[in-house]
Amino acid sequence: MRNAFDSVSKPTLIVDRAKATANIHRMLGSAYAAGAVLRPHFKTHQSVEVGSWFMQAGIDRITVSSVSMAMQFAAAGWNDIMIAFPVNLREMEQINRLASQIRLGLLVSAPGIMPLLAANLLAPADVYLKIDVGTHRTGFDPRKPDTILEAVRQADGNPLISIKGMVAHAGHTYKAANHDEILAIQNDSMQLLNDLKNQLAPGLPHLLISWGDTPSCSLATQFYGADELRPGNFVYYDLMQLQLGVCMPADISAVVAAPVVALHPERNEMLIYGGAVHLSKEQALCPLNMPHFGMLVQFDENGKWRFAEKPCFVRRIWQEHGMVSLSAEMAGQFSVGDLAGIVPVHSCLTADLLRENVLFI
Amino acid sequence: MRNAFDSVSKPTLIVDRAKATANIHRMLGSAYAAGAVLRPHFKTHQSVEVGSWFMQAGIDRITVSSVSMAMQFAAAGWNDIMIAFPVNLREMEQINRLASQIRLGLLVSAPGIMPLLAANLLAPADVYLKIDVGTHRTGFDPRKPDTILEAVRQADGNPLISIKGMVAHAGHTYKAANHDEILAIQNDSMQLLNDLKNQLAPGLPHLLISWGDTPSCSLATQFYGADELRPGNFVYYDLMQLQLGVCMPADISAVVAAPVVALHPERNEMLIYGGAVHLSKEQALCPLNMPHFGMLVQFDENGKWRFAEKPCFVRRIWQEHGMVSLSAEMAGQFSVGDLAGIVPVHSCLTADLLRENVLFI
Repeated sequence: MRNAFDSVSKPTLIVDRAKATANIHRMLGSAYAAGAVLRPHFKTHQSVEVGSWFMQAGIDRITVSSVSMAMQFAAAGWNDIMIAFPVNLREMEQINRLASQIRLGLLVSAPGIMPLLAANLLAPADVYLKIDVGTHRTGFDPRKPDTILEAVRQADGNPLISIKGMVAHAGHTYKAANHDEILAIQNDSMQLLNDLKNQLAPGLPHLLISWGDTPSCSLATQFYGADELRPGNFVYYDLMQLQLGVCMPADISAVVAAPVVALHPERNEMLIYGGAVHLSKEQALCPLNMPHFGMLVQFDENGKWRFAEKPCFVRRIWQEHGMVSLSAEMAGQFSVGDLAGIVPVHSCLTADLLRENVLFI
Repeated sequence: MRNAFDSVSKPTLIVDRAKATANIHRMLGSAYAAGAVLRPHFKTHQSVEVGSWFMQAGIDRITVSSVSMAMQFAAAGWNDIMIAFPVNLREMEQINRLASQIRLGLLVSAPGIMPLLAANLLAPADVYLKIDVGTHRTGFDPRKPDTILEAVRQADGNPLISIKGMVAHAGHTYKAANHDEILAIQNDSMQLLNDLKNQLAPGLPHLLISWGDTPSCSLATQFYGADELRPGNFVYYDLMQLQLGVCMPADISAVVAAPVVALHPERNEMLIYGGAVHLSKEQALCPLNMPHFGMLVQFDENGKWRFAEKPCFVRRIWQEHGMVSLSAEMAGQFSVGDLAGIVPVHSCLTADLLRENVLFI
């Protein structure tokens, strides 16, 4: 009889539950040691099943990055959800419905938005001020507390808005060259946030500091007063995190199973059913500055995978096809009809693409 | 009362039916003039609705790139479908079901696959030989007819397999520098295919030549004996095609509507709800060799869009966020809560990501 893994017929995300739950427990331990609460970001897995592993580990609050995801997880029984994305005023109908059902956190990230939110909110919500600690994506400048106080004043008198805390995501840790740089970014950012908190304290004495990003949350042993941690990627990890030195190969808990559809031994290449609509077009440049879209691993008969001695990569990618360049070690290891394993460059994007095709092992 | 466009609340593909049907009729005219049959590739739109526009234009046969898509369009009433992707032996159950219901075309793209297909096929199918005319993705070498004849012999005596034709896709036209290079690739490739057809004629007198790729099919006025054309992207076009000079701005029939969620006038940037999970991470480098993920357009109240005098681009992208860098002309044109229009770099990937969120205008 064929087992579940052997029945995989098209590109599928294979998630190793033991590895993922080990990642969850390790991060919970770090948060506990730091005296912070873990509010994991569910944008990485977007899976009710993976969510249930967090619930079993004692997590009772989560982060998502869209109103749609908040609706999905509210329906799955989560009662405390922060949408860590600037409030989308075109979705106020859905936001108001959610705010009337669960404890909902919303982000205000720039001047001019608070009055619009205050005018359209119809149920109580926690509102967080997004602070730009250096990524320059969005957020208030922590060096300009007056701008922030102005936004806070615009919510004054609105009984539905509780200004709850400050949210920061140091996305620039992904561009760091090494551990020390990651930790320096975290240190500098937390200094900015603590300074800001002190400046705002006279009018806002109980602001929380909510801190995100998998690289710093995975590496840090100090969190300098962060009340809440919001990493997401750590549940699966991926090649980007591996390249940053943030995880070990054995920590990666999700890889793509891709059917082998043609062999081209004359050029040491293998074509897989697994392209940009499965892996995403996220590129990595390591090693040797050669771009690739994922790393080959070999499955055993139950879907457990092992890394090769010498790594092989998906070197070219099209909508549905991926081309793996094979080393001498790997040439001859695969036949047409086999499943090749591909470690994603960026698991958040791959998991989003394969939301409907996941196998838990 | 709000119209359908004004009700768009999250990233949505806006498809201009008039432009798309004009593209369909123009391509039909080219195929007709060349004496070829149009078998359009549906991987670009993956939409039953857009498919119905082709049906109304008289198209009765289509191309798809996965068994899943073949099942989708067979269920929508299409009776002649070629899966222009190397046959995936792990999906033989679905393939056999389809082959028993509709006229199904399958691709054999490399040595060693025909015997496996012959052993597993349970219903009649048209089998096409995929020929590699230079993309070096997959396919038989047209300069080695013996290898091809060997594959054909492996199907001999199997009454379910009809060797129907040769399929080529000159994906390398996408790397061409100008129209002449695109047409030269087409000319050289068709020469290879016609030579091969002549060499195979003694044993296989009625092989069709099926030719794909939007750049050459859009530009060519001669098709040198191609019996069938399989372009797909032309129904929407995109920035990649525009950059190749294959379409005009007015031919582009699909753009993404993305809510504006924050303005950062201090750095002339605008943050949109529209990221890698909506646009894809496909990058373009034109103009000025600066990477971007899409071009800004402005909508009117019905969702019709117009291009700016001086183009603005999505310069940075994350999972759900996109950052548009604004020109002086565009600064001040958008407010938080508006819908910004983003022309995709590669409409096939964007349309795949927004399959569930399409608005036809």
